[in-house]
Amino acid sequence: MRILGLITEYNPFHNGHLHHLQESKKISKSTHTVAVMSGHFLQRGEPALIHKWARAQMAVDAGVDLVLELPTLYACASAEFFSHGAVSILNQMGVVDALCFGSELGHIEALKQVATVLINSPESFEISLKKYLQEGIAFPKARSKALIDHFSLEDLSSYGMTTEKMIALLKNPNNILGIEYLKALALTKSKIQPYTITRKAAAYHSTELTLNITSATAIRNHLFNTGNLNEMIHAIPPSTYEILSTCFNKDGGPIFANDLGLTILSMIRRMTPQEIAKILDVGEGLENRIFQCANQSNRLDEFCQCVKSKRYTLTRIQRICMRILLDIQFPLMNQATHASTGLYGRILAFNDRGREIIKLAQKKSSFPFITKINQYTPPNSFTKNLLDLDIRATNLYALAVKNNAFSKGEQDHLTSPYYRKELT
Amino acid sequence: MRILGLITEYNPFHNGHLHHLQESKKISKSTHTVAVMSGHFLQRGEPALIHKWARAQMAVDAGVDLVLELPTLYACASAEFFSHGAVSILNQMGVVDALCFGSELGHIEALKQVATVLINSPESFEISLKKYLQEGIAFPKARSKALIDHFSLEDLSSYGMTTEKMIALLKNPNNILGIEYLKALALTKSKIQPYTITRKAAAYHSTELTLNITSATAIRNHLFNTGNLNEMIHAIPPSTYEILSTCFNKDGGPIFANDLGLTILSMIRRMTPQEIAKILDVGEGLENRIFQCANQSNRLDEFCQCVKSKRYTLTRIQRICMRILLDIQFPLMNQATHASTGLYGRILAFNDRGREIIKLAQKKSSFPFITKINQYTPPNSFTKNLLDLDIRATNLYALAVKNNAFSKGEQDHLTSPYYRKELT
Repeated sequence: MRILGLITEYNPFHNGHLHHLQESKKISKSTHTVAVMSGHFLQRGEPALIHKWARAQMAVDAGVDLVLELPTLYACASAEFFSHGAVSILNQMGVVDALCFGSELGHIEALKQVATVLINSPESFEISLKKYLQEGIAFPKARSKALIDHFSLEDLSSYGMTTEKMIALLKNPNNILGIEYLKALALTKSKIQPYTITRKAAAYHSTELTLNITSATAIRNHLFNTGNLNEMIHAIPPSTYEILSTCFNKDGGPIFANDLGLTILSMIRRMTPQEIAKILDVGEGLENRIFQCANQSNRLDEFCQCVKSKRYTLTRIQRICMRILLDIQFPLMNQATHASTGLYGRILAFNDRGREIIKLAQKKSSFPFITKINQYTPPNSFTKNLLDLDIRATNLYALAVKNNAFSKGEQDHLTSPYYRKELT
Repeated sequence: MRILGLITEYNPFHNGHLHHLQESKKISKSTHTVAVMSGHFLQRGEPALIHKWARAQMAVDAGVDLVLELPTLYACASAEFFSHGAVSILNQMGVVDALCFGSELGHIEALKQVATVLINSPESFEISLKKYLQEGIAFPKARSKALIDHFSLEDLSSYGMTTEKMIALLKNPNNILGIEYLKALALTKSKIQPYTITRKAAAYHSTELTLNITSATAIRNHLFNTGNLNEMIHAIPPSTYEILSTCFNKDGGPIFANDLGLTILSMIRRMTPQEIAKILDVGEGLENRIFQCANQSNRLDEFCQCVKSKRYTLTRIQRICMRILLDIQFPLMNQATHASTGLYGRILAFNDRGREIIKLAQKKSSFPFITKINQYTPPNSFTKNLLDLDIRATNLYALAVKNNAFSKGEQDHLTSPYYRKELT
């Protein structure tokens, strides 16, 4: 039994994910797979297209054995914190042997070198980063530029890289998550072995929907623009198609950020700038800009464009929107930063091999799995706050869903994990 | 120059209001009329059908000379506090001679007797009221029952009443506001002379829309059920018809409580019971019930029915909903209770006679009138909070309105009072 870990959003699960799953199993020689997956709110500050149990089901139907929810605090956060949360869960399970992620080059050593620089943060890199930030450049871009400065002076041939390739790698935002996974693995002294696979065909942000393998972004954009599921039938596994169409037919989605727009703008118009400043990642006067823009916009996308600047990326603004919706304030993040334990494995979907993973983990570690939320007692206030946030996230997501049964709320208490019995 | 004061909601202005206006002028021998009118949120915990400037315009088009906004804190409050706010504004203007309100019997002396009992609160009445409250009866009904106990033992013939008539008067909720006006006048030692006029034809809560004079409730219900304005053409003045149809054609309404439903339920699902308990009029564990019901409902009417009980009337729950939306907490009400000054006369609409009222008031008192909100500096923190709440109320109401220009917010800063030049 060799267990592969994946860190995912599956929004929705498509052929690219299927390809990654199959290749990852092969390359890591794994027999079992566990995916840590975002719940109802995603890393780039958007609500999920459809609810988390349906997305987890897509994954298990396609061959993932166990899907655990990445708690909302980590799921709707910077690449660094997102990775920290997901890697911590895989670590604490005590049984995961491999982690495999997609990257543009598929060159694990190059990515490790970058992660090492970020961990050690040599003085020249620090100075360079500070300079770019002072120029008002947003953090992700400033860091990328400082890394390019650093690696331009290094000899990269020992691990088969060239300066040009390295610059291309650092300029491509699609590599950020991989670098952060490696950083998190190193910082937690993880025994999990990392692998990377070259992304096939479609880039992360690409929006064309013409190939068998396309990006989740392209699928979402297509749904947003046309509402038509049929045209993407070649890009998603049959089960994903089935689940999406059943869900859409029941008015269970698709959900987009604008569906939460009036609610979020109302919340901001209700708040004072002082209250807005308490929301995680707001500060430095951004609260005033948020307050003003909310009173000048009546759509969420319009609002985000109003707040956006050179210093504040659109993704960051979008995440702040979701944090306002969910009332995620600084203290919870502080608790998370100082907590060494307290995470949990909320089971969203599993099959019989998934059950084997859980059994082994329960033997080898004390990591808690949650099947029924009513039967779980959080061991400390951090865990309680973390779980309360997940429940709140579901209850607020639910109100964007038109389906009557779902939008009534309390889904976290009412919904059982999806179980797929494998044919023997 | 003799000035009549009216306390109104005009939601919307209809023939019953016109009749009341004309009769009130006659009975009080007034030459000028000022109406204090609710803004975007009303006494029974509902949003206004259309925005406050349009409703004020209807009134001035129909013959009211000046419309001042009743600040939201008072407008969306109990009959007692609503009356206190409105009477205080009329008092502080220093020029209002008469106040005329509608009642079922049109018997001012009987209503005064009731107001006196409420002010003096004799011991037997107190005991009786306490008993009913302890039985779990909601306050308005408990008070009505205690008053009936009191007056059943009194000789009412000196002012031409019978016990039966008095009981009928006390049982009818339509008389509550009149009693509260008289109470507020007495408590503030007001020089304003009260008058009452028998309500014509339609009762306050009546819902039939068949007569030339019907209730605002009937008009709203008709609009809610059919969306059809034409069938009420005989029940409203031509100007009201014109204003409503122009506004509706521009997607400016009609607005109903359910239009704010998802926003309010989202706000509650976002809050903890402890936070809900801070909202004005919540407490005694009601916060837990509110929290639970919000997670079991996906429509506001459904939610209100879920929270409603023998002790908590539907109106009270509806008001709490609007206070949650607007974040009206206990401290502001405490400030209001202890403030002897700090009110203002926010001008929504006026004609040339209205201008004469303002000029006289400015000569006779220091009561502040607000024409442009940018040019007004609140004299103290209470007034600032009161005005901030009015602005917040408009900004939140705006998001329920589909009209693009209006929903963008800041209407309180952008909209001038309506001025009607009278033909000479």
